[in-house]
Amino acid sequence: MEVGQVLHMNAGTGETSYSNNSHLQKKVISMTMPIIEEAMTNLYSSTLPSSLVIADLGCSSGHNSLFVVSELIKIVEKLRQKSGHQSLEIQVLLNDLPGNDFNTIFKSLPSIQKNLSNQLEAKDAGPYFFSGVPGSFYGRLFMKKSLHFLHSSYSLHWLSQVPEQIENNKRNIYIASTSPPNVPKAYSSQFQRDFSTFLKCRAEEMVTGGRMVLTFMGRKSEDPTNKDGSNSMWEFLAMALNDMVSKGVIKEEKMDSFNIPHYTPSLSEVKCEILEEGSFLIDRLELSEINRSTYYKEYNHSNISEIAANSIRAVAESLLVSHFGDGIIEKVFSKYKEILSENISQDQILLGITNLIISVTKK
Amino acid sequence: MEVGQVLHMNAGTGETSYSNNSHLQKKVISMTMPIIEEAMTNLYSSTLPSSLVIADLGCSSGHNSLFVVSELIKIVEKLRQKSGHQSLEIQVLLNDLPGNDFNTIFKSLPSIQKNLSNQLEAKDAGPYFFSGVPGSFYGRLFMKKSLHFLHSSYSLHWLSQVPEQIENNKRNIYIASTSPPNVPKAYSSQFQRDFSTFLKCRAEEMVTGGRMVLTFMGRKSEDPTNKDGSNSMWEFLAMALNDMVSKGVIKEEKMDSFNIPHYTPSLSEVKCEILEEGSFLIDRLELSEINRSTYYKEYNHSNISEIAANSIRAVAESLLVSHFGDGIIEKVFSKYKEILSENISQDQILLGITNLIISVTKK
Repeated sequence: MEVGQVLHMNAGTGETSYSNNSHLQKKVISMTMPIIEEAMTNLYSSTLPSSLVIADLGCSSGHNSLFVVSELIKIVEKLRQKSGHQSLEIQVLLNDLPGNDFNTIFKSLPSIQKNLSNQLEAKDAGPYFFSGVPGSFYGRLFMKKSLHFLHSSYSLHWLSQVPEQIENNKRNIYIASTSPPNVPKAYSSQFQRDFSTFLKCRAEEMVTGGRMVLTFMGRKSEDPTNKDGSNSMWEFLAMALNDMVSKGVIKEEKMDSFNIPHYTPSLSEVKCEILEEGSFLIDRLELSEINRSTYYKEYNHSNISEIAANSIRAVAESLLVSHFGDGIIEKVFSKYKEILSENISQDQILLGITNLIISVTKK
Repeated sequence: MEVGQVLHMNAGTGETSYSNNSHLQKKVISMTMPIIEEAMTNLYSSTLPSSLVIADLGCSSGHNSLFVVSELIKIVEKLRQKSGHQSLEIQVLLNDLPGNDFNTIFKSLPSIQKNLSNQLEAKDAGPYFFSGVPGSFYGRLFMKKSLHFLHSSYSLHWLSQVPEQIENNKRNIYIASTSPPNVPKAYSSQFQRDFSTFLKCRAEEMVTGGRMVLTFMGRKSEDPTNKDGSNSMWEFLAMALNDMVSKGVIKEEKMDSFNIPHYTPSLSEVKCEILEEGSFLIDRLELSEINRSTYYKEYNHSNISEIAANSIRAVAESLLVSHFGDGIIEKVFSKYKEILSENISQDQILLGITNLIISVTKK
């Protein structure tokens, strides 16, 4: 599977779209906002720029795509007005894989730009320029030394490819308690390679003193086989797929050769790669947890399984369709919902989600 | 009608898509290629750049979108290799209105990039970065002094809006022989305002010495009411719409309030605006004609009306749908085809299409 050609969050604005099933991602962005603001404030104060290039990597489409960049523009405007500087031009670069629904983002831009102008009272604010940059962030995306501020939320836990030589991870689709020992090792090495490539590319693209804030799913334990909120969701999806195998809907070989290109690293794995790559100073490296039960408390059990199933479907459907074809999707997610519903009493699906937040400065 | 929100060439790759009905536009681009090459060669030789930012304004989607920029990259690579310079980074900015089908362009990028690498034998060629810039070129789109080379083909004959106060242009949808005298005047003034705004914006965005090559439909005669290949196509469309009025499919008021935001200027109108704006040196300002009868000679009459109808549908459908709703489209174009078929003996639809080609240098 060519992840870069296949993976995309569900397009449009319908019931199973990413746009309508990305509340968790929105919560994570809001949680990270003070750190984003701190990084931008430090960048602004230390460079007093007359123009600013901001990139959001893995922007996806929907409400979240333009939320961070709109907030960033407001932060910069506030700083500029406070310091009494002249207006500055801001270029916003929105990146995602080529299969992402850029059309939906672009169509919403005129109203976003209008809202921004209304909210920013200064007449000399802007202009702001937006563009879409299709491509994998595990390669170069931008010109040398062209970026001042870079943000990426809930994207770097996606690997560039499924790790190689994990054909023996039968009946699993990710690191699971029944995975052979080579599987977590292969996942961890793939993450190291990918994250190191990511850092090298960004180091070329960012100006000296530029800031980068990254948030993605991680894990508390150093042992990747320890169950947490992230791998339990994939185990439930594996259960639904295995049920399709037992019913003859999916062939066993097809199931055995499917694995998710996803990894949740520990803080020390991330720190190690940043230090080894060497182009960035670490300003913050934090672990934070979102308590799903608080998050879901307003819903009843059947609603929770519906919401949780839709949120996994919005991110994983493209991978499943590419491997199994689109005929199985409704069946798989109907079963998935059923499994979540049955397991909800175990509170497994209510396990917290661990997030890593990284704020760095380009040396 | 908010042209910037409404106008887009037909999306996708189906029968009525712009992608499948833009052979004429492709021919125009090929015809302009020597002038594009000359401008890029002059830019390269005079600046010997280590990085290059190229923009294509009104890129649309389909085969033509990436044709010019691919050719431009090949030209630059040839120049670089000949002069023995080090590799250079090229940023390609693809612009069109927010309703344009950028998704289709972005999905084709990986294969375009692969083809380019195969065609360019040099191992040190590239890297090339592509991005999509949604927005009207009758406003600022890019950061100050950020562009080296700018190309636009078959876009600037679209106005930013339908001229105001032409409500008396009843039963016509463009400048026609039966239009009152204020109509051609209003169209001409709208073009002057729009083209002058276009030049002002580009002057801010281009570096000194930057080159710009523009091609669009124009007219040979100074009198805009003279019939030519462009306005005769709109007259036939008006005939089809009036037929819908007589059949009660379209209300008369609705027809009377519809006009096409399109204008084909003369060479002197264009020259006048460039000189008045004052930021550009004119390197070339030429008029050239495409002979439709040569172009169509391999088809029989019924095919010609089919092809001509589809090519107008691909560019005008979004405007018609926005004003009349999508219920009338099939009927209108079926009638349009019939009218073309009947009039083909008059050779009116075989009238040549006049194009203006402008090559300028930013002072």
